[in-house]
Amino acid sequence: MPRNLKIVVAYDGGGFHGWQIQPQLPTIQGELQRVLEQIEGRPVAVAGSGRTDAGVHALAQVASFRLENPIPETNLRKAMNRLLPPAIRVLQVEQAPGEFHARFSAKSKLYEYRIWRPEICPPMLYRYVHHHPYPLEMAAMTAAAPLFEGTRDFQALAAADDDLAPGPRTIFSSRLDNGTDLLCYRVRGTGFLRHMVRNMVGTLLEVGKSNLRPDEIPALLEAGDRSRLGPTVAAKGLFLVQVGY
Amino acid sequence: MPRNLKIVVAYDGGGFHGWQIQPQLPTIQGELQRVLEQIEGRPVAVAGSGRTDAGVHALAQVASFRLENPIPETNLRKAMNRLLPPAIRVLQVEQAPGEFHARFSAKSKLYEYRIWRPEICPPMLYRYVHHHPYPLEMAAMTAAAPLFEGTRDFQALAAADDDLAPGPRTIFSSRLDNGTDLLCYRVRGTGFLRHMVRNMVGTLLEVGKSNLRPDEIPALLEAGDRSRLGPTVAAKGLFLVQVGY
Repeated sequence: MPRNLKIVVAYDGGGFHGWQIQPQLPTIQGELQRVLEQIEGRPVAVAGSGRTDAGVHALAQVASFRLENPIPETNLRKAMNRLLPPAIRVLQVEQAPGEFHARFSAKSKLYEYRIWRPEICPPMLYRYVHHHPYPLEMAAMTAAAPLFEGTRDFQALAAADDDLAPGPRTIFSSRLDNGTDLLCYRVRGTGFLRHMVRNMVGTLLEVGKSNLRPDEIPALLEAGDRSRLGPTVAAKGLFLVQVGY
Repeated sequence: MPRNLKIVVAYDGGGFHGWQIQPQLPTIQGELQRVLEQIEGRPVAVAGSGRTDAGVHALAQVASFRLENPIPETNLRKAMNRLLPPAIRVLQVEQAPGEFHARFSAKSKLYEYRIWRPEICPPMLYRYVHHHPYPLEMAAMTAAAPLFEGTRDFQALAAADDDLAPGPRTIFSSRLDNGTDLLCYRVRGTGFLRHMVRNMVGTLLEVGKSNLRPDEIPALLEAGDRSRLGPTVAAKGLFLVQVGY
């Protein structure tokens, strides 16, 4: 009877073509399956809580898989980290109930988007922030952020080519935190369409540039018109911070 | 009459073959000279405070050069940053006295070496630390660090192939700071031989592993024997923090 295992994984998405396995391209799922196949001696299918796009980072992505190999959890974590590139780290391995599935069991996700405000973006930081050193109307942006909260069909914020499950999503909380140098947007919801968080941030930046008024957002969300809301901001500022079960 | 300019530069050395210009290879000096040639319309020779090796980072390297182009200092900084890769940032540009030279005028340098102690090294950090998750005798290491202070010929800590100027160097301060997760070694001196800081850290790690006693260090430094002191640790943990004039 194989164990059902749950792992928590952090990664720097900069060098990967996203979560989902693709032939010939480095992906997070591909790397995890490669090392688990080495450990198990045969292919292991790894399910993630959801896909992250090319360039998106994770502080705590969750994945699950079944393993026949009786290796203790701690040793499995160490073995995986020995075999994985340093840009992917397994932070935690634990046995999960048989019915646990990283994607289907997920109840919520927390994403964070980091915008660096000073004129100069430090060399050790540019991989992990979107650099926007231009003026922004902070009061309007801060007021606009919670307007994404609620339950609705978020087609207006989906990628143009999104073919994932339609239907409503709930955004529990959507807030902008204006630090000294770092503008940090945090959003927690039941699920997100492709590019949805990056389009939310693009929309907030349009508000910050006074190209859009906060009070225009609800109607645009309602209309589901993809063309009116903000552009998709860079992947490298986005972090998957937590998956709730 | 060309201006003599002093610039402060930060860089992530990970993608570069060190400071010094080399044909066909990306180097910090090479990148700076490339963009200054674009701005000046003819080659500009850039002098650094000293070379940093391949993979070594800088928070505030200093360089100097002469420029005919009358572009204001602030605009020059912006123009250089527009043309440079994001891993190199010009933090400051200022006019310097005619006799100022980044190398010959330098009076001291401060280096920092970062060692990450926890079992797992985060994906966003591994480029900027040396990962050493194994036991270390901290009391012995902390006691050994100041033994490098003083004025002497540091041949025992030079790279085997070092062909730079021999002669004495003064180490003003050499201290180990044991943080919760990060072990930070800081050393300030008049100058450093090639690999010298990394060999100091290698020696301290030998002490930490109980392969060397602190009280053996002075005689080994005195004897100038390169083979007895510690190995050269990884470049990626090393930062040039400050150059004093």
